[in-house]
Amino acid sequence: MKIETVRGGLCAVKGVRAYGIKEGHNGLAVIEGKGQAVGMYTASKIKAAPVLFTKRQLEGCEGQIQAIIANSGCANSFTGEQGMRNAEKMAELAADSLGVKEEEIAVASTGPIGKQLDMELIERQLGHVVKGLTAEAAGSTAAAKAILTTDTFYKERAIRIDTGNEERVVIGGIAKGSGMIFPHLATATMLSFIYTDARLSEEIQRASFEDAVANSFNMVVVDGDMSTNDLVLLVSTGQGGAISEGDFKEGLNFICKELAKLIARDGEGATKFIEARVKGAASVADAKEAAKSIVRSPLVKSAIFGERPDFMCGRIIAAIGSCATVSGVDPGRISIGLKGEDKDKDKDKDKDKDKDKDKVSAVKNGEFMDMSGVAREVMRDKEIFIEVDLGIGESEATAWGCDLSYDYVKINSG
Amino acid sequence: MKIETVRGGLCAVKGVRAYGIKEGHNGLAVIEGKGQAVGMYTASKIKAAPVLFTKRQLEGCEGQIQAIIANSGCANSFTGEQGMRNAEKMAELAADSLGVKEEEIAVASTGPIGKQLDMELIERQLGHVVKGLTAEAAGSTAAAKAILTTDTFYKERAIRIDTGNEERVVIGGIAKGSGMIFPHLATATMLSFIYTDARLSEEIQRASFEDAVANSFNMVVVDGDMSTNDLVLLVSTGQGGAISEGDFKEGLNFICKELAKLIARDGEGATKFIEARVKGAASVADAKEAAKSIVRSPLVKSAIFGERPDFMCGRIIAAIGSCATVSGVDPGRISIGLKGEDKDKDKDKDKDKDKDKDKVSAVKNGEFMDMSGVAREVMRDKEIFIEVDLGIGESEATAWGCDLSYDYVKINSG
Repeated sequence: MKIETVRGGLCAVKGVRAYGIKEGHNGLAVIEGKGQAVGMYTASKIKAAPVLFTKRQLEGCEGQIQAIIANSGCANSFTGEQGMRNAEKMAELAADSLGVKEEEIAVASTGPIGKQLDMELIERQLGHVVKGLTAEAAGSTAAAKAILTTDTFYKERAIRIDTGNEERVVIGGIAKGSGMIFPHLATATMLSFIYTDARLSEEIQRASFEDAVANSFNMVVVDGDMSTNDLVLLVSTGQGGAISEGDFKEGLNFICKELAKLIARDGEGATKFIEARVKGAASVADAKEAAKSIVRSPLVKSAIFGERPDFMCGRIIAAIGSCATVSGVDPGRISIGLKGEDKDKDKDKDKDKDKDKDKVSAVKNGEFMDMSGVAREVMRDKEIFIEVDLGIGESEATAWGCDLSYDYVKINSG
Repeated sequence: MKIETVRGGLCAVKGVRAYGIKEGHNGLAVIEGKGQAVGMYTASKIKAAPVLFTKRQLEGCEGQIQAIIANSGCANSFTGEQGMRNAEKMAELAADSLGVKEEEIAVASTGPIGKQLDMELIERQLGHVVKGLTAEAAGSTAAAKAILTTDTFYKERAIRIDTGNEERVVIGGIAKGSGMIFPHLATATMLSFIYTDARLSEEIQRASFEDAVANSFNMVVVDGDMSTNDLVLLVSTGQGGAISEGDFKEGLNFICKELAKLIARDGEGATKFIEARVKGAASVADAKEAAKSIVRSPLVKSAIFGERPDFMCGRIIAAIGSCATVSGVDPGRISIGLKGEDKDKDKDKDKDKDKDKDKVSAVKNGEFMDMSGVAREVMRDKEIFIEVDLGIGESEATAWGCDLSYDYVKINSG
């Protein structure tokens, strides 16, 4: 099995057309492609209308959807019965325009909490978007751009999997990250829509999706605030090749991680990307909790913004210690390694250079090493890789995040 | 029963002497006062040496302590066996100077993680501090100042309880809040030492203390990072009056809340104090989780820094929704009220003015009110009181915190 990154995003997948427009803060995207959909939704106790609506739709049509309509500029969250009627209305309008059944439309929204959708605007925008629907790569990019809020770049990826049996399977997706919408009542929302042409059973599709989301989107922390609108959908058109469960899982994990890392990279105010790998844990659940606690800690994030490895390591220790359910932690066994990468700086370097040479041992079996020299150098890079070895087991997990900068405060206070 | 605030801090309590000095980042405080001690310690899985040591000491001497020695400038955390020996050495030095048993000394530290104590410095400072020990108010203040790190003011309170039976009971305490110590490896630590002269059984003392800490220090969130060094001790000298359990609980709750609020007020980079009261919850545990999730949210904190009631309310909703264990949340029943206070601005106002006039209804039964006028005005005050009514039960809880400002990032990145 071979994974190859290809262009085209969603539209690299057979049977998918997409388009979107953005006017100021208000964007609208439509993705058309008949297929079997599985969804994962925010764990918030207060779910936005489109989340509740789409969950119900997918149950009603047994996942057989025709299209997704998604808007940015208003979360349609905390909007009561009117909000639910508006989510339904979005589906109805999309169904009419596309000539399909209202029951087979999924809806998503992102933006400010507590205000109602402008249905006239959505109806008007929908007309343009449906006219623009295309299977060309530009359609996916337009949709990816339409759902952005405070994101600074659009997020789109596609891969082609060569199964070795002359079968070809494509997975393509778009995502938006944590962003706040000016001017009202904002929250951070993560949306992602992924399509594949793989021929799959619904069971394998669902199991693979849950696994991939758990290892990718669920391992990204920008600020630790959970949105009322988070929504991820995976739709398989079945127009491509057959693929084994293992190969599909691997491909889907790959693309979900790629999209998740793009979200971390584009976290609000981010100046640095953080990857925290925790190994040597007693269980994967422990490793996950520890890795997430590191990228969630405002103190760790601030230390990375300030390029201070010494502060950072002390706070990583505190973050690990604060994990309620991680078992067997022994300070004397903890080691921390650091690595930096910087595309701008590294491009002049020798390509054949041993990458591991950059790895600095900052903490070794519970003891702080000298962090005044190379460790400080590493922290100046744009991408910071932290590897924590708990030294007590065989399990590992990786989480992604970004630093906490002045701009995070600026973006979210203004 | 009547509670009256008095001066003198720790030294308002019969049988207590205190003193402390601070040289640059390095401070040392001693509190001398024979009594029955109960302690509460950080829940971190990685506890600093002084935390482990003091817990063991209190078990060994059945809580009968003679003195507390506490230093700032080094947390003695993540310091292995050497760290444990140094904590023991601190107790030994203090015992020798005071002419008491080493087994009856409690030790606390705050400062950078990962470096060893400078025992010579501690020995030298201890000489000065022991000579300075006094039962005068100035002794308590000197001790309160000695344990500070990035705190911007010292924290000290004392109350006299009139039980109505000609008995007088005093409770006095000092605390330090979340602060980071320049120049190395910092974490945030909360320390508080409280003395009382009340004649109490150990059972009542412990039960009252656990109750008071749960409702005060445990309800303060500056950044959500848990320290390896948090430590709170309550010592009763028994040299004052008798008091009923109920009256003592009330008094102790009062002083612990006062000290906790001082910590919130002095959170790193704080420009505003936040009090979040959640009522109408199904249980006290639910109300506590919801209230803490509000003051922990970086997005809520940023919105308060930016004085945006509309952003803030949307994010409060999201914060409540994200509470994993809060049951029965119904968006349509949630109401949010706002109130502001500003000592500088309010001093010119009519004293008799009805305080409740300032309370603004921002969200009413799931609907956002207009927040462009009075609500924005309220947010300009230095103290922001948020009252969330979940509308589903009878329980309530209050949490305290501060906003997230540029200075938080500055303090913790440099």
